[in-house]
Amino acid sequence: MLATGLSITLPDWLPGWLQSWPHSIKGETERMAFVVELARRNVDEVSGGPFAAAVFEQESGRLISAAVNRVVPQHASIAHAEMLALSLAQQSLGCHDLGAPGMPAMQLVSSTEPCSMCLGAVPWSGVRSLLCGARDEDARELGFDEGDKPSDWPRLLARRGISVRRDLLRVEAREVIGRYALKGGEIYNGRYED
Amino acid sequence: MLATGLSITLPDWLPGWLQSWPHSIKGETERMAFVVELARRNVDEVSGGPFAAAVFEQESGRLISAAVNRVVPQHASIAHAEMLALSLAQQSLGCHDLGAPGMPAMQLVSSTEPCSMCLGAVPWSGVRSLLCGARDEDARELGFDEGDKPSDWPRLLARRGISVRRDLLRVEAREVIGRYALKGGEIYNGRYED
Repeated sequence: MLATGLSITLPDWLPGWLQSWPHSIKGETERMAFVVELARRNVDEVSGGPFAAAVFEQESGRLISAAVNRVVPQHASIAHAEMLALSLAQQSLGCHDLGAPGMPAMQLVSSTEPCSMCLGAVPWSGVRSLLCGARDEDARELGFDEGDKPSDWPRLLARRGISVRRDLLRVEAREVIGRYALKGGEIYNGRYED
Repeated sequence: MLATGLSITLPDWLPGWLQSWPHSIKGETERMAFVVELARRNVDEVSGGPFAAAVFEQESGRLISAAVNRVVPQHASIAHAEMLALSLAQQSLGCHDLGAPGMPAMQLVSSTEPCSMCLGAVPWSGVRSLLCGARDEDARELGFDEGDKPSDWPRLLARRGISVRRDLLRVEAREVIGRYALKGGEIYNGRYED
C-alpha cells in the first residue's frame, strides 16, 4: 500500500511562541526580526534547520503564516521554511494563488535567501514581494548547498512583478546559521560527483 | 490561530487505480507509460493538473510512490506531481534523503520535464536518475509557465550525479497536457509585468 497523503507539521513549541508576538507587524525590519528569532528558536529547540519564513499582508503587516525548516524531523527534503510558509498561507486562505483577484498583496519574508527550489516556488505562490535576511553565500559558506540559481535572480523575479529587498538583519540571520553549524546540526545537501 | 501543519492528499480514485498495476515495473519506457496513464486519469477525473510522477527503485523497478498534480484542489502551489512523489517516497521510507547510505538507487519518473521549482527539488531529494516524458517547451506551448530554468539543466544535474533521460513517450505525455487544455482545465501560472 503506497502513501496517499503528505503531512508535514510545525514544531509543538511554535504556537506557544507565537503568542508573545503581535498579530500584525508593520515595519519590514521588524518582520525580519520576527523571522530571524523564529529561526533561532528552531535551532535551540533542535527541531529543524536554521531557517524560518513567514507570509504577511504587505500593507497591513497581518501575519498569515509562519514556518521553520523541517527537513530532517519530518523526513521531507521539500520542507524548507519558505515552502511551508507559502503552503500554509495558501491553505489558510483556501486558494493556491496568494495573488488572486481581490486579495491584498502578500509578502514572503525569509531568514535566508531562497535556494534554487524555493526560488522556483516563489512565482507560483502569488506573493508580490520577498524580503531576505542572510545571503545565499552566507549559507554556502557555512556548508549548505543552495543549488544552481541564476545570478540575476532578483531581476528575474522583478520581471514577474515580485520585488526583492535583501540584507535585512543579514548579520543576525547569518549568526543563526552559524549557531546551528556550531551545535553540530546536520547539513543535508545535494551531492557532487568527484 | 495560524496553521501548524500542511496536509496534501492524493485523489480518492488513486489507490484503486494502482491495484491494476504490478508492484514493480522493469523497463524505463514501461515506467513512463504508467506515469503518463496516471496523468491522463488525473485529467479525466478532474482532480488536478495534467502531470504525474513516481519514484522507483532504479534496478528492481519496485514502485515506491506515485503522485499527481494537486495544486488547485489542495490549495497549494507547491503540490506539483514531482514534489509529492519525492516527499511521499521519503516519508514512506522514513528518511529525507533517498540517496542515504544503504538505500538502493532511486529514480524519479515525470510525465513532463520539471519546472524550475521541481528542478531545484531534485538534487535535495537524493534520487540518482530522472526520466522525463514531454518537454518543457511542450508544456509552455500549451500555456504552462515552467519558470526560469538554466538551459543546460540536464548537465547541471549530471554534475550532481543525477542522470537524465528525456523524451520517453513524449508524444503521449504531450497529448495529456493538450487534453487538459482542451477540457478547459485551469492554467495556473506565474505573472509577468507588462
